[in-house]
Amino acid sequence: MKITAWGVSGIGEIVPGQQLGDIIFEACSTEPNGPLQDNDVLVVTQKIVSKAEGRLVEIDPTDPLSHKVLVEQEAVRIVRRRGDLIITETKHGFVCANSGIDLSNVERGYAALLPIDSDRSARRIRDIILAKSGVNVGVIISDTFGRPWRKGLTDVAIGVAGIAAVVDLRGTEDALGRMMQVTEVCVADELACAAELVMGKSTGIPVAVIRGAEPEWFRDSSMNEIVRPAQEDLFR
Amino acid sequence: MKITAWGVSGIGEIVPGQQLGDIIFEACSTEPNGPLQDNDVLVVTQKIVSKAEGRLVEIDPTDPLSHKVLVEQEAVRIVRRRGDLIITETKHGFVCANSGIDLSNVERGYAALLPIDSDRSARRIRDIILAKSGVNVGVIISDTFGRPWRKGLTDVAIGVAGIAAVVDLRGTEDALGRMMQVTEVCVADELACAAELVMGKSTGIPVAVIRGAEPEWFRDSSMNEIVRPAQEDLFR
Repeated sequence: MKITAWGVSGIGEIVPGQQLGDIIFEACSTEPNGPLQDNDVLVVTQKIVSKAEGRLVEIDPTDPLSHKVLVEQEAVRIVRRRGDLIITETKHGFVCANSGIDLSNVERGYAALLPIDSDRSARRIRDIILAKSGVNVGVIISDTFGRPWRKGLTDVAIGVAGIAAVVDLRGTEDALGRMMQVTEVCVADELACAAELVMGKSTGIPVAVIRGAEPEWFRDSSMNEIVRPAQEDLFR
Repeated sequence: MKITAWGVSGIGEIVPGQQLGDIIFEACSTEPNGPLQDNDVLVVTQKIVSKAEGRLVEIDPTDPLSHKVLVEQEAVRIVRRRGDLIITETKHGFVCANSGIDLSNVERGYAALLPIDSDRSARRIRDIILAKSGVNVGVIISDTFGRPWRKGLTDVAIGVAGIAAVVDLRGTEDALGRMMQVTEVCVADELACAAELVMGKSTGIPVAVIRGAEPEWFRDSSMNEIVRPAQEDLFR
């Protein structure tokens, strides 16, 4: 088994009202970006989804408080706070710094909020590509989150369509023929990580293609597979 | 930029005392596993490292307590406990379930402990391959950890050699020419995730090769780049 991941060039600067599915389809219709094939996974960074969907809010760039008010508006709960760092739980159930709001790769004077429903954003991109070309791809909307205990950020899925979020290996036998204990793998987050390796943070490549994922991972899915309900969680 | 990841076949069952560097070099010396090239990354799962290094402990498979005593021995601190689930901080500073001890893919009646020093394990593999072939690879020892707030497990690095653990993008300009806020990316964990996608959990493929990682990521490194000191951590 082999997977290949590459960044999609030529997406350009995205502005509110643009249809990402059309733009990505166009960019991927020629070499070396594409053409896309059945069971390719498209990983699309949150920033361009937020821009296309008009999730930009004016802030006073000289006033740190203006950013902070936004963070609290987008949160359902403050999980931790230390100095300027605020870890919140968002309306979607994501736990992350600053309710997922950030200012990098956004015009000065604006902040980008998370998409309202990233599963829907992913589905729309998938549906447009299917309608235009008959090709069935999985789509993951990715964002860059920190995590407890470990330094450095990694990319995670915040929206999925047509590709499993979590794959259940419960009941699968391990290589020694014993039932496995370790059971559920978050392939959507792992695919987001693989994509980040080819997108970098500052190179203006907001979309990646991953080819070679297991065919059985391609199915209906949603972020409900990933977001852990508060009552099952030991850390909030 | 393009990366490719594939599983290495033919490693076979590992027993205490075997030299993994020799075995991996051998497996990767022929098509389709190899030959290895400069700046390839080898991702090696913890389980075979623990086996090769004799980190196997006899337990009574009918007595759950015998496993639990081990978990506490390997921990420096219990971080959370609910029912049978114990989240501990290990001697290495990793926070994970059961001190990283698990029983899958291990012979019945034995538990595999984490390697004593996975950076050293990674370095040994790297050094053997360099000595035998003159090829400079990065090596990551990976394990499968859960995380707060998100369901599903993902692979992470628990040892590194010759490849950056965390890449610092501080001061890099974003695509709009502004200084970036998001700064440090844990490429070692992202590489471990990409590798997991091709290794699966039950297929007996304990090693993967990743080709195409950024040349500037190849340098001396250690898990100190990833383990967050307790005093900087908001969640223990």
